[in-house]
Amino acid sequence: MKGLFITFEGPDGSGKSTQIKKLADYLELCQIPYILTREPGGTEISDVIRSLILNPAYVGLTDKTEILLYAASRAQHVKQKIKPSLKEGKIVLCDRFIDASIAYQGYGLGAPIEQVKAINHYASEGLEPDRTYLIDISPESARERMQKRAEKEYNEDLDRIEQRKYAYHRRVREGFKAIRSENKQRICFINGDQSQDDVFKIIQEDFIESLKQFSN
Amino acid sequence: MKGLFITFEGPDGSGKSTQIKKLADYLELCQIPYILTREPGGTEISDVIRSLILNPAYVGLTDKTEILLYAASRAQHVKQKIKPSLKEGKIVLCDRFIDASIAYQGYGLGAPIEQVKAINHYASEGLEPDRTYLIDISPESARERMQKRAEKEYNEDLDRIEQRKYAYHRRVREGFKAIRSENKQRICFINGDQSQDDVFKIIQEDFIESLKQFSN
Repeated sequence: MKGLFITFEGPDGSGKSTQIKKLADYLELCQIPYILTREPGGTEISDVIRSLILNPAYVGLTDKTEILLYAASRAQHVKQKIKPSLKEGKIVLCDRFIDASIAYQGYGLGAPIEQVKAINHYASEGLEPDRTYLIDISPESARERMQKRAEKEYNEDLDRIEQRKYAYHRRVREGFKAIRSENKQRICFINGDQSQDDVFKIIQEDFIESLKQFSN
Repeated sequence: MKGLFITFEGPDGSGKSTQIKKLADYLELCQIPYILTREPGGTEISDVIRSLILNPAYVGLTDKTEILLYAASRAQHVKQKIKPSLKEGKIVLCDRFIDASIAYQGYGLGAPIEQVKAINHYASEGLEPDRTYLIDISPESARERMQKRAEKEYNEDLDRIEQRKYAYHRRVREGFKAIRSENKQRICFINGDQSQDDVFKIIQEDFIESLKQFSN
């Protein structure tokens, strides 16, 4: 079987990190070779770039710098980790990819969509996911969940991107919806207001179907 | 008088950092408002990116990651420091700019020149230097000078870019020459094998001429 590139998209607080771990556990159970990775990050160098992007101290980081740093991190991740794993026939589960850049930097910050696409096409060498699970949730519900998590579990502050206002996160949500309507074949759109088990049931069923489809 | 954007280009060891300081001292003497800055770097965020690019530990940094990190650092520098200083009517003296990316990443690493140009045009918002001093020197002489400097003055190791082989630095030199022939109006080409005083005499005379020309 050839490798499969599966991405998870949606705002922080949508539950996507929980869901990607559930799918990883399922692959583990089925003894299907996979890697679980995330963006920004995924390699040592990309993790250093990630810490720079998300550091709340860098309030003066310009939009273009942010876009180029995400792309730099992605270039490293694709070349060093994602492409070699796909070549080995593994399933690559990736928490966020280019759709996130288009939604957050393009729609969220108002950067020209075509420029964001062009820079990321360059960075990723044209690599596209085979299947994407996009979990949709309102910015209000997402924020509520994140704040609960920050207080109860990690006692950590929101990062530089998370701190942005609701209007920004609303534009991001609309961005994700626009991306979905342009990529209906690739993107599986899921209502994130359901229970974690219900969301995972949808993902698991769809994933098994995708596996069959891509094996043919 | 409007601001003027002056860049210095050439390999490490060409003496350009000495020359840019000499020109800064001259502007100081003439009480002409200026700033002295450098790439990669020039702002707090860009300096963090600089340390990432030049760190010899990151041997696995891909060419695209390197190109995008330089561009990210440049975007921040242009927006936060260079453009505001030019707007205030200052002379901006900058140690390296886009020509260096085209020479080092384009010609040196063999990345497509048009892609390097496009990414940097995006990062710099189309900003171009008014005048560029390009100091030419053979890779062998440059390496000899740098190694002397590293042993005697700083006792520091060569950085990730400096460590590359002669063949790379020869391609960079040819790249600079190609850039010069495409930009004869803008670039003042100087033989770096002369004494520091002789090099500075050429730069100073040319600078005074440029000042007159751009004041008109």
